[in-house]
Amino acid sequence: MNTYGEHLKVSIFGESHGNGIGIVIDGLPPGLPVEEETIAAEMQRRAPGNSRLATPRKEPDQVELLSGVFRGVTTGAPLCGMIRNTNTKSKDYTPELPRPGHADLTAYWKYNGCADYRGGGHFSGRLTAPLVFAGALCKTLLRQNGIAIGAQIQRIGSVEGPRFTWPTEELLARLVSDSFPTLGETVRDRMEQEILDARSEGDSVGGVIECCGLNLPAGLGSPFFGSVESRLSSLLFSIPAVKGVEFGDGFGLAAMRGSSANDPIARTDSLDPACGVVTRVPYATKTNHNGGINGGITNGMPLIFRVAIKPTPSISLPQDTVNLNTGENARLSVHGRHDPCIVPRAVSVVEAGFAICLADLLLCQWPDGVEKDK
Amino acid sequence: MNTYGEHLKVSIFGESHGNGIGIVIDGLPPGLPVEEETIAAEMQRRAPGNSRLATPRKEPDQVELLSGVFRGVTTGAPLCGMIRNTNTKSKDYTPELPRPGHADLTAYWKYNGCADYRGGGHFSGRLTAPLVFAGALCKTLLRQNGIAIGAQIQRIGSVEGPRFTWPTEELLARLVSDSFPTLGETVRDRMEQEILDARSEGDSVGGVIECCGLNLPAGLGSPFFGSVESRLSSLLFSIPAVKGVEFGDGFGLAAMRGSSANDPIARTDSLDPACGVVTRVPYATKTNHNGGINGGITNGMPLIFRVAIKPTPSISLPQDTVNLNTGENARLSVHGRHDPCIVPRAVSVVEAGFAICLADLLLCQWPDGVEKDK
Amino acid sequence: MNTYGEHLKVSIFGESHGNGIGIVIDGLPPGLPVEEETIAAEMQRRAPGNSRLATPRKEPDQVELLSGVFRGVTTGAPLCGMIRNTNTKSKDYTPELPRPGHADLTAYWKYNGCADYRGGGHFSGRLTAPLVFAGALCKTLLRQNGIAIGAQIQRIGSVEGPRFTWPTEELLARLVSDSFPTLGETVRDRMEQEILDARSEGDSVGGVIECCGLNLPAGLGSPFFGSVESRLSSLLFSIPAVKGVEFGDGFGLAAMRGSSANDPIARTDSLDPACGVVTRVPYATKTNHNGGINGGITNGMPLIFRVAIKPTPSISLPQDTVNLNTGENARLSVHGRHDPCIVPRAVSVVEAGFAICLADLLLCQWPDGVEKDK
Amino acid sequence: MNTYGEHLKVSIFGESHGNGIGIVIDGLPPGLPVEEETIAAEMQRRAPGNSRLATPRKEPDQVELLSGVFRGVTTGAPLCGMIRNTNTKSKDYTPELPRPGHADLTAYWKYNGCADYRGGGHFSGRLTAPLVFAGALCKTLLRQNGIAIGAQIQRIGSVEGPRFTWPTEELLARLVSDSFPTLGETVRDRMEQEILDARSEGDSVGGVIECCGLNLPAGLGSPFFGSVESRLSSLLFSIPAVKGVEFGDGFGLAAMRGSSANDPIARTDSLDPACGVVTRVPYATKTNHNGGINGGITNGMPLIFRVAIKPTPSISLPQDTVNLNTGENARLSVHGRHDPCIVPRAVSVVEAGFAICLADLLLCQWPDGVEKDK
Repeated sequence: MNTYGEHLKVSIFGESHGNGIGIVIDGLPPGLPVEEETIAAEMQRRAPGNSRLATPRKEPDQVELLSGVFRGVTTGAPLCGMIRNTNTKSKDYTPELPRPGHADLTAYWKYNGCADYRGGGHFSGRLTAPLVFAGALCKTLLRQNGIAIGAQIQRIGSVEGPRFTWPTEELLARLVSDSFPTLGETVRDRMEQEILDARSEGDSVGGVIECCGLNLPAGLGSPFFGSVESRLSSLLFSIPAVKGVEFGDGFGLAAMRGSSANDPIARTDSLDPACGVVTRVPYATKTNHNGGINGGITNGMPLIFRVAIKPTPSISLPQDTVNLNTGENARLSVHGRHDPCIVPRAVSVVEAGFAICLADLLLCQWPDGVEKDK
Repeated sequence: MNTYGEHLKVSIFGESHGNGIGIVIDGLPPGLPVEEETIAAEMQRRAPGNSRLATPRKEPDQVELLSGVFRGVTTGAPLCGMIRNTNTKSKDYTPELPRPGHADLTAYWKYNGCADYRGGGHFSGRLTAPLVFAGALCKTLLRQNGIAIGAQIQRIGSVEGPRFTWPTEELLARLVSDSFPTLGETVRDRMEQEILDARSEGDSVGGVIECCGLNLPAGLGSPFFGSVESRLSSLLFSIPAVKGVEFGDGFGLAAMRGSSANDPIARTDSLDPACGVVTRVPYATKTNHNGGINGGITNGMPLIFRVAIKPTPSISLPQDTVNLNTGENARLSVHGRHDPCIVPRAVSVVEAGFAICLADLLLCQWPDGVEKDK
Repeated sequence: MNTYGEHLKVSIFGESHGNGIGIVIDGLPPGLPVEEETIAAEMQRRAPGNSRLATPRKEPDQVELLSGVFRGVTTGAPLCGMIRNTNTKSKDYTPELPRPGHADLTAYWKYNGCADYRGGGHFSGRLTAPLVFAGALCKTLLRQNGIAIGAQIQRIGSVEGPRFTWPTEELLARLVSDSFPTLGETVRDRMEQEILDARSEGDSVGGVIECCGLNLPAGLGSPFFGSVESRLSSLLFSIPAVKGVEFGDGFGLAAMRGSSANDPIARTDSLDPACGVVTRVPYATKTNHNGGINGGITNGMPLIFRVAIKPTPSISLPQDTVNLNTGENARLSVHGRHDPCIVPRAVSVVEAGFAICLADLLLCQWPDGVEKDK
Repeated sequence: MNTYGEHLKVSIFGESHGNGIGIVIDGLPPGLPVEEETIAAEMQRRAPGNSRLATPRKEPDQVELLSGVFRGVTTGAPLCGMIRNTNTKSKDYTPELPRPGHADLTAYWKYNGCADYRGGGHFSGRLTAPLVFAGALCKTLLRQNGIAIGAQIQRIGSVEGPRFTWPTEELLARLVSDSFPTLGETVRDRMEQEILDARSEGDSVGGVIECCGLNLPAGLGSPFFGSVESRLSSLLFSIPAVKGVEFGDGFGLAAMRGSSANDPIARTDSLDPACGVVTRVPYATKTNHNGGINGGITNGMPLIFRVAIKPTPSISLPQDTVNLNTGENARLSVHGRHDPCIVPRAVSVVEAGFAICLADLLLCQWPDGVEKDK
């Protein structure tokens, strides 16, 4: 169950302080360009140590392509990307004291005490680096099909920014190039201050990431278990610290009437061009409360979803826990280098998950080569 | 991709106005009692026509067991339950006018115009009846393992009720026996009024369902793609009209500090019994902001999640759409018998999804018969 | 694990004497014609009671389409075909005496005595009827793509007929229309006599079915776990009584030298047309010892395989067994109506398995709509 | 589709002359001992260069454990073993001339010319090294559960040796420790001579491997698509050069009567101990023509199957092919270092496949911790 995807399958492996972490990607079409700079740029977005807001740990996170790439393009065979673990400080960890909010205790139970606990082992946020690598490859596939994706930080702690209305490709491109993407400068400053405040108190803070995809074909996804929401949420909830996912107006829809929530349909060419709707389909919706998905299937409108990220569990403030060796209650202060807020780095991970899911959906379509109804 | 589950697999089939709908359930252990009354009672909870708040349509929804049951217990072979479609009024539908908020347009695109559009076809909420049937079988398995589940309506439109704090088994039993389960009488009355108001205006309204599982073993689920959140959200988003899912404090965690969000760990027997914590594990958490899941794996605390249900798209108010035959803009009023609020009937569906997911998780454990570390 | 296929998924359910048996087929493209006569004709080929060589049982085997078909074509949603069980004589069975060569004892063990033992329950050869139904649909897909398949009885007991050399479409069409397809009249008469001899002695006899597919595209299948041989053998060994599968010269290759076994490659247009090679690819092989598959992937040459069918285990001669109630050794004579040789009826089942596998392979190709290398 | 298994999943990756090859194994229970010597010994059995009969290439085939092992035991998280490619001679290959009997041409077609052709790329027999590594881990699991497996070379070219009758654990242990395991010394000498003859003529030769498992629990496997034969054949046909698989008497059953093919059942303690039957189940069969499997499910008797291996396609004799650059007919002599017979090295690969399949079957059982029928 460490594999995701229907046609495009990704499997991650590795533990934070083991020999290496990586991902096997199967099902990519042959001939897809694999550019090292593009990959490095994506890895850099997630990498720690490149911001005053993040952990000072430096991890090069260089991906070695073990297989599946030949002469700069995918071969069609399974592609494995591997990242060596370096700069690990195992002595920072005391395995007998499970950290509240972490997977230490659940891993201890599930694996009968055999789990590699160092740095969170297989549960470490470090395992999202291979996801970002896979996402970089998938983004190439999306670009080739004219699809643009991007994300913004919509909330940090108590600071909430505006939501997407009708995002443009230009906006998404701007957000992707930003290490702290928000809609507006002011809200960004306040968010950064919120993070600095938490850090100065030895604490951490959560947030919300909002993501958008443009120019999607209509008809991706399946009813029920293969719905776009099912596939995407399943992948997003794989990302450590994600505790909520909503599509379109999401929980806001629960408070609405049907007459507001239903997105009216109209010929795309009958819409006022000034309204900013971006779509490739001939029939558009005038509003997008459903986030581009009806019945689990894309309708060609912007696909929009939001992801709730909980505060980083690693904080230096003392916390209550138990000692697994003695079975007694205990106190714990987590030392070491930790992010006071994982949200900025998580943006690239959420985008990667989105890209992987969309690439899989594109590849799940019935092949045109098969004659259907002659 | 119409199959859900890892060890326990369920596949639904059927269209609203076709010959029949059903579900194939594979992987149930042999010897599980299948009691017709228990199943009928669950089916009755979802069935329309039994409330002044719901559609007056009467559907018996009687499940015929085609296979997998012999002498009152499961055989271990695939179990198929089938429900005949009756009382269908196909003339209520005009396929050339896709209904806003429904899957009509996306189904039209995905299936090249071949989809059975009558009553929403395969996308109909009617397809949740087989899920409820499967859920009834899974609940038997849960009961045998001492696990209790239940749900409440936590919001209808603008009326919000209290959330679960530390629910007891007695509370869950009370909720399950209630056709409109809420925490408190007053909030229930206001919610019902909200629904009646929407109906009187030819409109509909959404809501939030909150679900809880008690006495779960610790260690269910897997890291990343097999996380409890991934598996459960994937199934919940399969239910038509679900647009948001959150675990524990969910989106609320985005606004919290780590020092609040991290649930402190303590010996269960050191907790004040008056606090109401229900768990079978020796180490409990003093709070439950993470909803009983850490690192994607159950920690033995109450598993709590919330599901956002959008307003029923079928409303009698006129709406904008297009005519697929002429390609022109058009107006549409959806006639026929529709629920002004699907939330009360959706409670049993959400519970069923929860039960199916938990049963699968129980069955995914490593078999004890396999010697691991001699 | 009752599901087969990667893109096209089939799941069978049912027990021989239960309410019904059936199959769910998911992934068929929308718009595929579903003609009742075509299906009925295929069902008739497998049905018992239509030959002096087979059991006199009469089963109509009429398939009811529960879902997935609308206006004579597939909708794209899961298609369920169901067959009612009728004419069952449960009193013929003594569950405490497991029949040698049958699954009675293994089913008893696996399912803790809960299996439906009547008529072999879920293990009955009757469960191949839904496979034949699914095969009929898949054959339509194959025909639309210009692919022809057919099979012959190559051995019955001690009587061995010739193998395929370069079969033509005409030959395959002739075989498919024959209820006892062989290469030659003489061998057919001897095979029929072999069956009549076995029956007259209260015994049964096995055989070999040889199957061929023509006009396949090159490039179907995947290396290793997704090889054509892996996929096809997995499905063929699902058919009760199949105990051996070989591709091309199969076990004969073990006795060959590489210089003979390697099929020389040449431009198709450079081959002597008189040689009878049928292929759509520009480069052909001059011989076909590898049966149209190299490295698990089709090379466009005729795909040829053979399947060993063991003798029907149900014989009226007395046999040794145990009594599961008393735990003592016992004797058993299987009464009732049984085929002295299942091979002629198995031809349509093997063909159906072949058709299902090929249809899945066609649908597994990368969609052309996805731009790969611009 | 590069993943095999239901509960235990293995995914291989890599190309013969790329950076590395490897395997990800998911689902192993935590706490399984991982001993480097055991692994190295298994790898050595498959490794080239250690026999006068095999290619003189030297490959250390040292497996680096990237993840999933901590303190000498499995952690329960995905385990990745990686092998660096060294000693590669890419200049031996001329990609424009596809080698007859190899996957060169099919890979070219499937992957649009993007495949890594060097050394056969992903289709290379070298990719079986990771399978042997995975098999070594699975054998530990089998040993812990009292299961013994082993294999013999039953045929090389025209030389056929005896088949297993009732093998003992001692016999299997002896075979496993032998680099050219046969039943008898004489037949071994004749087989080795057959190989040397082929080599001296610049040719190659095939063979048959027969495999046996002892002390299996009854009840492993499922009916139809999950049958032991389906699962095992699917894995065995993944091994390059395998073209036939048969269980028990296999194709021999096609020539038998039911009265001979049906294995009579008896109380195990009623059998003459001298007959040599090895089983842990209370009811045994007096013969084993069905190879320990009925209805796709193990019956506790020795599981026996045979695998046909075609001659190594790489021979130095000149062969006909085409030139993919010019599209003209051409001649090719394959130079380089090749095995005149792959069968002796394939023994460990077939055993590994068997071990992986059996370990998966053991792990697929219903967990005992789940209460079924109280």
